[in-house]
This record gives sequence, structure tokens and C-alpha cells, in this order.
Amino acid sequence: MYTFLCKFVSNVIKYIFMKNRFLLSIFFLVFISCSHTENTSDKVKNKQKQTNKFAIVIHGGAGTILKKNMSVEKEQKYKAKLKEAILVGYNILKNGGTSLDAVEKTINVMEDSPLFNAGKGAVFTHDETNEMDASIMTGNDLNAGAVAGVTNVKNPISLARKVMTNSNHVLLYGSGASEFAKEQGLTIVDPSYFYTDKRFKSLQKIKEKEKSVLDHDEKSAFYDPDIKNSKYGTVGCVALDKNGNITAGTSTGGMTNKRWHRIGDSPIIGAGTYANNATCGISSTGWGEYFIRGVVAHDISAQIEYKGISLKDAAKDVIQNKLTNLGGTGGVIGLDKKGNMVFEFNTAGMYRASVNDKGEVVIKIYKQ
Amino acid sequence: MYTFLCKFVSNVIKYIFMKNRFLLSIFFLVFISCSHTENTSDKVKNKQKQTNKFAIVIHGGAGTILKKNMSVEKEQKYKAKLKEAILVGYNILKNGGTSLDAVEKTINVMEDSPLFNAGKGAVFTHDETNEMDASIMTGNDLNAGAVAGVTNVKNPISLARKVMTNSNHVLLYGSGASEFAKEQGLTIVDPSYFYTDKRFKSLQKIKEKEKSVLDHDEKSAFYDPDIKNSKYGTVGCVALDKNGNITAGTSTGGMTNKRWHRIGDSPIIGAGTYANNATCGISSTGWGEYFIRGVVAHDISAQIEYKGISLKDAAKDVIQNKLTNLGGTGGVIGLDKKGNMVFEFNTAGMYRASVNDKGEVVIKIYKQ
Repeated sequence: MYTFLCKFVSNVIKYIFMKNRFLLSIFFLVFISCSHTENTSDKVKNKQKQTNKFAIVIHGGAGTILKKNMSVEKEQKYKAKLKEAILVGYNILKNGGTSLDAVEKTINVMEDSPLFNAGKGAVFTHDETNEMDASIMTGNDLNAGAVAGVTNVKNPISLARKVMTNSNHVLLYGSGASEFAKEQGLTIVDPSYFYTDKRFKSLQKIKEKEKSVLDHDEKSAFYDPDIKNSKYGTVGCVALDKNGNITAGTSTGGMTNKRWHRIGDSPIIGAGTYANNATCGISSTGWGEYFIRGVVAHDISAQIEYKGISLKDAAKDVIQNKLTNLGGTGGVIGLDKKGNMVFEFNTAGMYRASVNDKGEVVIKIYKQ
Repeated sequence: MYTFLCKFVSNVIKYIFMKNRFLLSIFFLVFISCSHTENTSDKVKNKQKQTNKFAIVIHGGAGTILKKNMSVEKEQKYKAKLKEAILVGYNILKNGGTSLDAVEKTINVMEDSPLFNAGKGAVFTHDETNEMDASIMTGNDLNAGAVAGVTNVKNPISLARKVMTNSNHVLLYGSGASEFAKEQGLTIVDPSYFYTDKRFKSLQKIKEKEKSVLDHDEKSAFYDPDIKNSKYGTVGCVALDKNGNITAGTSTGGMTNKRWHRIGDSPIIGAGTYANNATCGISSTGWGEYFIRGVVAHDISAQIEYKGISLKDAAKDVIQNKLTNLGGTGGVIGLDKKGNMVFEFNTAGMYRASVNDKGEVVIKIYKQ
């Protein structure tokens, strides 16, 4: 019976094959097409899985930012610029661009504005110059680039990127960094480009205050609340792109009235900036010396990696407990690999922005 | 019955108190005296606990140090200088001095020797200058000081200490750091003090090699094993004093032929140096860029703090797994709060020394 059946089926197939090649071809094509459709649909699904999630957060500095000292006009200026900046990065990410591009271009917008203590709006040193620091790190390869004491490069964050991608180094300083910037074709400006009346007046005010206080106690000048505020500023951005890569970047003019070519935490990988796809990306802002001593950005990542806690809990512990106990003030912004955001600070305010699930820009300044 | 007993005891006490105040006073004095003796004895025990344990470890750089390339005479020179250096710190600790003093003075000995790539023996930059970096950190208060790009300060580690204790900053650069050094009364030397024939010839050799290789592939010059070795050097020390305080310090001339005012990991807190009484002290040596990207010194501390593993296991994971996977080469020395030592490196050798329980100096160069 079985043999008979086999022979029958075999003959039927032979008949179809011989007499109706056209029908068989159609059948074959439909089969292939179906299986192909299935594959394509799988690919789309996978691609959607890869491409759905992206996120971006920015800060424009933390400090004693109080509503009572802020005019409506000034507040609107800051909000408009933060919105403009974050949308540049958001659109790059939305269109499938890299988090590296998003972070650089977003920070460029803030560097080009006189509102923030970075690039155009950088504060003055004791010697009435502007010395800028910046760093950038990519979480997929733990690569990093940074510059410090830069005086004539329009966009320090773009130079940090070039150090990362086009040199064998991580950190370059001052005139050496400028020489490298020229070789890389970046925009060089006359140092006078960084002059703003507002920042120059701040320096004079602090010097006056310092003069009057120095007679009494050298250290008290540093703890005067007005002078303390002069330490804050800095801009930063953390982005997660559709490929799951996190990039973090920070750019600053440092501390008003800084001396002796002081370098803060912004160009220090692990303190001012850190990114690791396995954990998170972080950009810091605040009293740099404490952020260096606390290795703040890496400490948040390490708590996620080794304690298995969330970005939110790690950032809270590092800023509200460890940094605060050390006497440091400031904050961080961060993103983890799932796009969870964090804004943690122990100051009165932090200029900050994010984009929510609906694509709406959310901007905040004060503690809420 | 209970009421009766209470009344009886109360009456007995009253009787003793009224009739024999003298006896009661004696009893009271003996009681106080005993409890005081107990307290004092506790204090002595605690003090002994605090004062028994101290330890010190040093390194003079890691790299492709092979026995076949080393003459007996050269080896003896290195060993003698390592012994001299560690004994300076050991004696400070033994006599109840601070780990801060021990680390500074030990490193000073190595900085003053032309044998090591730090201070007197610093390597040359591409521009035929010497730019030195150093940092120091104390584990009891997480305080830190560092300098980079210093060209005329005899002992960069001493300047790093002054930055930590006498300024409000952590990291100063170049001419600014020198200005601060002068204000602090440190020894300033003419930059020609750092000229040594050996280091100058190394620079010329590398430049020649670079010239011939650059025509083919810019990057290959960097991966040439001979040039790769030029990155190594650096000296470092970690000490634990009788009060349980850990200090770590690192000093270096950086990378031969370095350009653009490159800064390595040695002045970066968290990368080249880290100290925390609760975990460990670490000094790094190796290809600086990788140590910055890996935040190596802090990562070892973080694994102890958050994973609860030993210094040995943490150092092994960070150097043999994480740093090696990143492509970095070099090593670390470290001490934990109990005085446990670690020497971990993924290179052929590391100049290193420690003092064992019997007070004997143990010096090693190659992998053993």
C-alpha cells in the first residue's frame, strides 16, 4: 500500500513537472516570496527594536539659580536657547544619526550663545583671559577626547571630538591643543571673540570683593556665596542613539577668576564626563574640584555596574550623599542604555532640558 | 514580702550612708578607678591596633623590560635606587610619620634620579622640552592635588602636594603651576636641569623611526614596539601609615615625543592615582590614554567598595581583563586598609619594591 502511494505521488509530481512547468514555477515563486516576506517582516521588527529608543538630555549649568533673581525676559531667553539646542540633537537622533553627532551639535549651539559659561559666554580668568575645557566620550568603545586651557578655538567640544577620533591622545592642553585644532581645520577665532561685557564685569566684581576680603582671611573669599556662584556654569549633553550607543559631552569656561591655569572637572574623563553603553552616560556641572575628588561620573557608572542599582539611585547616592558629604555642590545629567533619564543636583537650580515620549521638549530651571 | 525586702535594703543603704561615709567613698573610688583602668587599657589596645600596621609599595614604571636587554650593572643601579627610595618612606612610617610625607619623600628620591621617567630623568617632548605631570591623593579626606605640563619645578610631586594643601584647586597646568610653585617656595630649576643624553637620544631615535614609517601609515609608528616602549616610565608610591591613612602619588615625564601638550593619566585623579581609606590606594603606570579611558585607579577602588572583593581580585580584573580588552598595557601598585599589597601588570616587567613583615626590602623587575 505504502509503495503504491509513493509511486502514485511521484508520478503525479512528474506529471506536473513535465506538463505544467508554468504552474510549478508560480507555486515556487509564491513560496519563496512568502518566506522572503516573512524575513523582511522579521528584519523590520528587529530594526524597529533597534530604532525605537533614543533619548537626549542637556544641562546649562547648576548653581544658586533662584526665581527671585530671574526676570521673565531672562528666563525666556534661557528656555528658548535650551529648546533650540536640544532640538538640534533630537532631530539628529530621530533621523537615525549618531549620539556622537547629537552631543557635539547640541553643545555647539550652547557654546555659540553668550548665555552659558562655555565657548562664546566663557568666564574670565584672573588674568582677564578665557581658558576653556571640554571632553567627550562614546559608550560603545570607551573612547574619549578632551581639551583644557583652550583660548582661541570657537567650539572646544568639536576639538575634543577631533582629539578622540584623529589623535592617539585623550587630553591636550592650551597652545598645543590649538595647534592640533588648526591641523584639523577647526574654526580658530581671535581670543577677543570670547569677550562679553557681562562676564568681564563679573570678574571685576569678584576681584573687588576678593581685595576687601583678603585682608581678613584668604579662604573666606572662596566661601563667599557670591563668589561661590562664579564657579558654576558649564554645558553638557548626553544622548542615546537608535543603535544603542551612548555619548556624553561637557564644555565650560571654568571658574571666574581662576588662576595658575587651573583645570576643572569638565575635561577629566570619570569626573566631568563618562559614557559606557553597559551602564550610562553622565555630564557633570558644579564645583569642579569636588567632582574630581569624588570621581563623580564614573562613580555613578560603577554603582550601576557593580551594585546593580538604577541610574536614578546611583546618581542620587553620589550627588546627595557622597558629593554633599565631601562639601561639593553641583549636579549631573544622565541617561542609561534604556533611555531612562536623570537630573540630580544639590543646588537651588540647574538649567536643564529633555524631550519626552511625545516628542515635546521639557525645560526646567529650579528645583521642582 | 517584696515591699519588706525593698524597705530593708533601703534602710541598710541609709545606715551605711549615714554611719560610714568613709567606707562608701572608698568603695566609690575603687569602682571609678577600676572603670578608668579598663578605659585606659581599652585605649592602649586601640592605639596598638592603630599603630601596628604600616606598609609601603613603589614602582618605577612598567613596560617591555626584558632580562636579555638588561646588563647586570644596570639592573643593580635600578635595584639600589629603588631600595634607597622605599627605605626613605619606610623609615618615615616606622617612626610614626604620615603616609603623605612617606609618599612625597620616596617619590622625590626617584624624581632626583636620572634612571626613571620623572623629574631629572623625564623624557623629551616632540619639541625637545620636558613636560612633567604628577598627582597625590590622601585617603582620609579624599583630598587631592595635581600638576601637568610643568617644565621648571624640580619635584613635581611636591608641587602636587602644595596644590592639594595650599590652594583651592586640584589640577594646575604649566606656567601657572610654576608661578604657584614659586609662591610656595619650591625649588625652581632651569629647564636644562632635565636634560639627559639618554632621553635626548631616545627622542631622536623615535623621530627617525617615525619619519621612515610615516610615509607608509601614520598609525603604524604608534604601534611599532620600540616606540610603544617609549610610553612607559612613571614612578609611584602608595603608603599606609600607623593612623590607618593611605596616600597614593604618581610622577612622570609622560610619553617620549609627545605633542600638542598631551597630558597622560598620571595627573588624573581616578586614572593614574586614587586613594580612599575605606578601600585602597593605587598608583598606575603604562599607556596613559587607556588608563584614562578605563578610569583604572578608581575602578579598582569601586570594585572593592561595591562588590566587596579583595584588592588583589579587583586589580587583577581591571588590569588583566578590562584594561587588556581595551588594548591598554601597563600596571598598578596598591595597598588596602589592612596593608595588603598588590602589583598587577600585563607587561613583561615592572620596576617595583615593597618591604616585608621582617623589615626586609623586596625588589622585583620581571614577571615572576
